[in-house]
Amino acid sequence: MLAHIQNRDREINEDKIVDEIRALSIDMIREAGSGHSGIALGGASILYTLYAHHLRFDPKNPSFYNRDRFVMSSGHGSSLLYATLCMAGYPLDLEDLKKFRTLHSKTSGHPEYNLSLGVEATTGPLGEGIAMAVGMAMAGKHSRALLNNKLIDYHVYCYCGDGDLMEGVSYEAMSLAGSLNLDNLILLYDSNHVSLDGATKNVFDDNIEERVIACNFDYIEATDEIESLDKAILEARQNKKPTLIEVKTTIGKYAKDEGKNTIHGRVLEKEEITKIKKKMGLRDIPFTITNESLEGFQILIQNRNEHLVENFEKEIDALEEEEKKIVELLRGDKKTITLSDLLYETPEDKKESLRLSSFKVLNAYAKESPLLFGGCADVSASTLVRLEDTISFSKDHYEGRNIMFGVREHSMAAVANGLALSGYRPFVSTYLCFSDYLKPALRLSSLMDLPVTYIFTHDSISIGEDGPTHMPVEQIVTLRALPNMEVYRPADSNEVIGSYRSIMENMHPASILLSRNTLPILDTTSVPLVSDGAYIVRQEERDLDGIIIATGEEVSLALDVIKLLQEKGYDIRLVSMPSMERYEKLEDKKKEELLPIGIKKFVIEKSSSYSWYFFTYNDSYLFTQDVFGLSGKKEDVEKEFHFTKEEISLAIEALLK
Amino acid sequence: MLAHIQNRDREINEDKIVDEIRALSIDMIREAGSGHSGIALGGASILYTLYAHHLRFDPKNPSFYNRDRFVMSSGHGSSLLYATLCMAGYPLDLEDLKKFRTLHSKTSGHPEYNLSLGVEATTGPLGEGIAMAVGMAMAGKHSRALLNNKLIDYHVYCYCGDGDLMEGVSYEAMSLAGSLNLDNLILLYDSNHVSLDGATKNVFDDNIEERVIACNFDYIEATDEIESLDKAILEARQNKKPTLIEVKTTIGKYAKDEGKNTIHGRVLEKEEITKIKKKMGLRDIPFTITNESLEGFQILIQNRNEHLVENFEKEIDALEEEEKKIVELLRGDKKTITLSDLLYETPEDKKESLRLSSFKVLNAYAKESPLLFGGCADVSASTLVRLEDTISFSKDHYEGRNIMFGVREHSMAAVANGLALSGYRPFVSTYLCFSDYLKPALRLSSLMDLPVTYIFTHDSISIGEDGPTHMPVEQIVTLRALPNMEVYRPADSNEVIGSYRSIMENMHPASILLSRNTLPILDTTSVPLVSDGAYIVRQEERDLDGIIIATGEEVSLALDVIKLLQEKGYDIRLVSMPSMERYEKLEDKKKEELLPIGIKKFVIEKSSSYSWYFFTYNDSYLFTQDVFGLSGKKEDVEKEFHFTKEEISLAIEALLK
Repeated sequence: MLAHIQNRDREINEDKIVDEIRALSIDMIREAGSGHSGIALGGASILYTLYAHHLRFDPKNPSFYNRDRFVMSSGHGSSLLYATLCMAGYPLDLEDLKKFRTLHSKTSGHPEYNLSLGVEATTGPLGEGIAMAVGMAMAGKHSRALLNNKLIDYHVYCYCGDGDLMEGVSYEAMSLAGSLNLDNLILLYDSNHVSLDGATKNVFDDNIEERVIACNFDYIEATDEIESLDKAILEARQNKKPTLIEVKTTIGKYAKDEGKNTIHGRVLEKEEITKIKKKMGLRDIPFTITNESLEGFQILIQNRNEHLVENFEKEIDALEEEEKKIVELLRGDKKTITLSDLLYETPEDKKESLRLSSFKVLNAYAKESPLLFGGCADVSASTLVRLEDTISFSKDHYEGRNIMFGVREHSMAAVANGLALSGYRPFVSTYLCFSDYLKPALRLSSLMDLPVTYIFTHDSISIGEDGPTHMPVEQIVTLRALPNMEVYRPADSNEVIGSYRSIMENMHPASILLSRNTLPILDTTSVPLVSDGAYIVRQEERDLDGIIIATGEEVSLALDVIKLLQEKGYDIRLVSMPSMERYEKLEDKKKEELLPIGIKKFVIEKSSSYSWYFFTYNDSYLFTQDVFGLSGKKEDVEKEFHFTKEEISLAIEALLK
Repeated sequence: MLAHIQNRDREINEDKIVDEIRALSIDMIREAGSGHSGIALGGASILYTLYAHHLRFDPKNPSFYNRDRFVMSSGHGSSLLYATLCMAGYPLDLEDLKKFRTLHSKTSGHPEYNLSLGVEATTGPLGEGIAMAVGMAMAGKHSRALLNNKLIDYHVYCYCGDGDLMEGVSYEAMSLAGSLNLDNLILLYDSNHVSLDGATKNVFDDNIEERVIACNFDYIEATDEIESLDKAILEARQNKKPTLIEVKTTIGKYAKDEGKNTIHGRVLEKEEITKIKKKMGLRDIPFTITNESLEGFQILIQNRNEHLVENFEKEIDALEEEEKKIVELLRGDKKTITLSDLLYETPEDKKESLRLSSFKVLNAYAKESPLLFGGCADVSASTLVRLEDTISFSKDHYEGRNIMFGVREHSMAAVANGLALSGYRPFVSTYLCFSDYLKPALRLSSLMDLPVTYIFTHDSISIGEDGPTHMPVEQIVTLRALPNMEVYRPADSNEVIGSYRSIMENMHPASILLSRNTLPILDTTSVPLVSDGAYIVRQEERDLDGIIIATGEEVSLALDVIKLLQEKGYDIRLVSMPSMERYEKLEDKKKEELLPIGIKKFVIEKSSSYSWYFFTYNDSYLFTQDVFGLSGKKEDVEKEFHFTKEEISLAIEALLK
């Protein structure tokens, strides 16, 4: 029994509280008919000790900005998390726990981001939670630096298991966290040497202590006793490095197959639950919390965190005006950004690389708002995604706004999720082809509907020499098929400006796909119309013979095609469609005006033909890229795949006849 | 100068050979106008030392099965690789080098799998090469074990850089390699402390020695001097663990910005090339190889490898008949597998979980051929992807055929590529939603057109309780949009058998998507017709009022829908389309028979609507899943998203009127 839990003339039986959390968890799983009993029984003391003795939070003010963050990376431990949150005082009652894993309940199968309930992030896909926690820790360091080393001093705790540590994304994120010396990060590793398919020994024989020390972490070992955990967390909080605490636990503690992989995802029989509760000295009534335990737990939390919010507000009062503004932005609801004035000089020759346009516009927005914070996976020299007038974010310069992620696309995106969950509007960048690496994290951006901006350059076969390993084909389709994700593929500098505007004035995950090439700035492209998703770039002159829909650099190609067709007497409309998702949101009337039914439509896009079928009679009307690319000079590659004005205009002519 | 290179009364000037490789490489880059000079100048001695003194190979027999494998994980070093292969005697001449990065040349922008040229794997996306090398090393161990510890004893060497080691997939693969104690694996780490965006210090500050030792590797440090490299590789070959040799190099050696990130992807000016060649004591004539160097290099190779092929054939002669058969299968061209007899018992109640059907069929094929070798990313208890009558592949049992990959989807797929490149027909498995994690490697399976079989279970929202993090929406679209990849989504056990048959009797990358649920075995589904991609499961009785196309478990739902419509007088055909890709390959006449033009078509599939547009008038004819799922009971979730026979039949009725 810990000394400091003698509170207000009562002694709190902490082990009993942990057992009640266990009991609730397995009751929930039994009621739902599915869930993960192993972690619920094995890891309960970790969550309890953290919430009871360390986590700085106020369940009545769950979005309090300077709260410590807790991420349940082992998302399959959702019942354990909900049971703990319920007992800790979040607005989750026993009825909610009984509805575990039923439709529209507060207690979904895996934790889904819901700050009001204390769920800081959606987790389940393993490893992601660790990397999001790294992002939150980076946000904490940056916010504090922005405020001249004041005010923000939260810790980020992350519960993880063997599965999380096996995933490459966790290694990437930990390597980054160590290099950045994020001493506000504490990983609680539920180490039980067992995963779903068996003992980890033959599969995952890493020396975890050596591994984390190699990554510039501190390492502490603990048992699953409250006292040991308490001591370890206290030590970790004082460390000058990020820390991993390896907690030696027993998966499925008290179950008949405790310590074995069979308990991992097994629903316990009623009789077995009775036995387990008996072992723990609890009464066998499902979904029971004793008042004694509930009060004991909540008193510990309350005593420690009593004046948290109040004191924070006082500290804010003492800030400079400029600093106050930053705090309000970070914790406020207003995250959309409108440019007061875009000082954008159109180049004299009316040509610009879209990467360069992107650089200019991104920087304009970054000057407007400190919420823009991000970087690149080691190709910023090529994607031109970096901010001027600032330095790299590093362990000596947390005020830097350019994050050097290293060649770690996956953790880059997951970190961006962590930044967004901390109030930022992060941007990240790599080549479009390598969006593959970060897809699991990008999916979570979409699932949580976070305002993360993905800037993907080198967006088609027109990169030429680098060849098929670097040439996207199916990637645009993946992004477009992803719910919530808004995809922009601008045709020229005007549309780049328009794309950023649409992204920044909204609050959704977005991808902006940029050609590597220098492109003419067209007379008829539009900045504001990008947010419509589609608009007319060339109006027919007399009779509407057909419509070409194009995106990105193919809009210029389409104009050339139309000129050739014009010579043959055809009058063609050109619709630029920078964003299919935005177009989908238009009213039907507007859609019909742009793309009238009954008129032949053609599509030119150097990407998979998927989804474009929607607009055309059949696939002969599609000029798309459905096979892998080839290495060669840009012009040779484009010719090889029939993206020439001559070939396309002939094909269209044949179809128009 | 090394002692053992006094050959046939001549002394070989090895440093000069290395310099000539450097010169060729930068000439190639200059000629192409793009490429990576930093690695070409910095890493030349590593490749030279390996090929001249260690690699067991015969450029005249590039597919010799027991050759040592070399994987250039740093694929941007392609010019260095081609220059070395050219000088080592592979069929690449100076004209080929001059065509570097031009269309249809042998020397593409990044290395593309072409065994006849000595290119063992397509590389470029970083980290993949290391994981493929681990797969090749696993294949080597398994092959040797199959042959009762005889014959196969090749080493796998892999050249990698900081970028490779930063990628999570390399950590995953190395953790696995260490746990499996693959002492036939040697990583040559080009350590120059610089990546594209700058010094690695602030971004990637891992202690590499500690990191690899934590992963059960041996660690050796070397300089870029031939002698130091030679000693290190010799030591590594004798190690009883996998080894990483950290070679301290200087990026862009001899360039004016040597040691800096600016040289990474810079094309050198003509004058600078002149200066560099002068520093190296070479004449300034582009694309020059001296006879002396060429002969010197090739003599070293030849002397060491002279009787390689011959001796191997002799050793084969001495094998048992059974063992000979295995060797012939591994190195032969015949990798398709036809079942002599499928002992498949249909369950009495005519229902079966598709995972269970898959288990039975996979095992039947595994009994037929030792080429089937694979496993699961720690969910085999759930995907049922494991082989009977064998054990787990482990450091003590390389004969085991079940690979326990751990929770490492990405490296699992990359390892599978390595196995396929070594003559196996690997299969790997996880939940469909987590295909996201392995996408970069799956793309390489497709790009190399390797016969890797991906078995993805839990293929839709009908998993229910686990919720949206585990519910695929856009994944099927991604797979279908990927060139070369054949996607199968069987409707019942019959179609599971048919899918495996089609996959095993062909040689392409394939994905088989399986429902988690137990499904009725339908009377009219077909085993052989699956390879057509689509066929009629319910024929209309009199008049064809409409056609429903469905896949997977929705075929059963469609039958229910049709029954309801029948009651209202509609006569509907049902086409099961287990594979869109196979359907695409049918003759137009056959397609028209199945899906006649002018007949209304409806699609039911619990996946993104993308691509299904192709078959229907507009999207109201699509019953698909275009938003994220929700956690809840299967039935509740299906109802929530309108996948009920009542709702669908009413909607279809309205459209048919």
